[in-house]
Amino acid sequence: MDIVILGSGNVATNLAKAFDAAGERLLQIYSPNIEHACVLAEQVGAEGISNLSEVVRNADLYIISVKDDAIEQVAQSLTEVSGLVVHTSGTTDLKSLSRYLKRVGVFYPLQTFSKSRLVSLDDVPLCLESSNDDDLSILIALAERLSSRVYQLDGEKRKVLHLSAVFACNFPNHLYVLAAKVLKESGLDFDIMRPLISETADKVMSNMPFDVQTGPSVRRDETTINKHLSMLNNLPHLQEIYQTLSNSIKIIHK
Amino acid sequence: MDIVILGSGNVATNLAKAFDAAGERLLQIYSPNIEHACVLAEQVGAEGISNLSEVVRNADLYIISVKDDAIEQVAQSLTEVSGLVVHTSGTTDLKSLSRYLKRVGVFYPLQTFSKSRLVSLDDVPLCLESSNDDDLSILIALAERLSSRVYQLDGEKRKVLHLSAVFACNFPNHLYVLAAKVLKESGLDFDIMRPLISETADKVMSNMPFDVQTGPSVRRDETTINKHLSMLNNLPHLQEIYQTLSNSIKIIHK
Repeated sequence: MDIVILGSGNVATNLAKAFDAAGERLLQIYSPNIEHACVLAEQVGAEGISNLSEVVRNADLYIISVKDDAIEQVAQSLTEVSGLVVHTSGTTDLKSLSRYLKRVGVFYPLQTFSKSRLVSLDDVPLCLESSNDDDLSILIALAERLSSRVYQLDGEKRKVLHLSAVFACNFPNHLYVLAAKVLKESGLDFDIMRPLISETADKVMSNMPFDVQTGPSVRRDETTINKHLSMLNNLPHLQEIYQTLSNSIKIIHK
Repeated sequence: MDIVILGSGNVATNLAKAFDAAGERLLQIYSPNIEHACVLAEQVGAEGISNLSEVVRNADLYIISVKDDAIEQVAQSLTEVSGLVVHTSGTTDLKSLSRYLKRVGVFYPLQTFSKSRLVSLDDVPLCLESSNDDDLSILIALAERLSSRVYQLDGEKRKVLHLSAVFACNFPNHLYVLAAKVLKESGLDFDIMRPLISETADKVMSNMPFDVQTGPSVRRDETTINKHLSMLNNLPHLQEIYQTLSNSIKIIHK
């Protein structure tokens, strides 16, 4: 397929490289910042552009992978194209595209991406939506060339996934940040925590997290909980988080 | 070494099996519940006992791996032994043993253990403490046969590790529980979240978590944050956690 990618951020970068690796043809990478566009374009043999009027009209697929609040503006510039136009957002309605365009869809990869770290899409859930059956088939065929986990989900379910991902990814990563902070205050290196983090995630690959909850709160070990809270006296912000999450564990495991 | 393990819980079970696999000789497993003692004892070729007066006096090493508030009581029953006595607790002072015994130490594995899931200790940080150099050397030699990560840490640092582990392990697992809950409310299966959880942990194996934080809060995407909060209107307990952690991300990344 001939593909144009509109965006050059974390998701755009990972998708562009995955499409390139899968043998799809990337025609253009658009970014309002021409440098950003060209850096990515060079890596995938495409043309970098920074003006929406330069977008070719004859591609098969246009992937809008920009900040949520910029999606509509990009969509409005694509009224002349005949190809299928999709966005990659977890929270944006399909309507943001169908308001302006006929052939539209969603191609939402449920993963955390960074530019500096290329993620294989083999195992990444690709969540698809389209109001047109033919276009949906096109998206399914493309997605199945990239991943073994292809889902067809409506907008409401996709939004729930996105919300859950905040709990399963963004918040745990933030707790790693806080663990690193606690360690640093005592001159300890974050590296000592890595095997534990790895095992904690591995454990829920084959178990439900509820069944493998450990720690003082699920044991109702108030002595340890109180020791921990008093150790955080100088970090009231972390103390509040400890209290909130500890209480939540007690509520859920009552 | 001839080893007696006092306890039959998650840590005791994983340590007993690791020592057995490493060729150490397990003499006895103690638990106040004789069935629990015997189940583990059978698996590692030891004798199961349920009475502290039955503990043999001539072992090289006694490992107390019981609930924190039961450690002293077990220690008091070991005044007649000549071997080294250690506990495996992250939060308990060495004094809890040295108050009653001469040759004492700590053997704290920084990992989350479940009976049903055998964890290799190869990569698990084993945190050691002893006030006697000879006994410390014995512990180091033993620990190095089990793991490539052996640390000598005093009680204060060990307590900090234990606190950090709550942030890096117990709380993230609880957030997986909450993600599963959000998904279930919409008829979605937790399995769809697994590749994301795995990648989130993998990412910090070679990066500092601060540098790879993603999500609406670090982007200050208030539109998405507000959508998420309103989706949680019927789950006020999760709404509070979302608000607390989202604010924390904004504070730490300001």
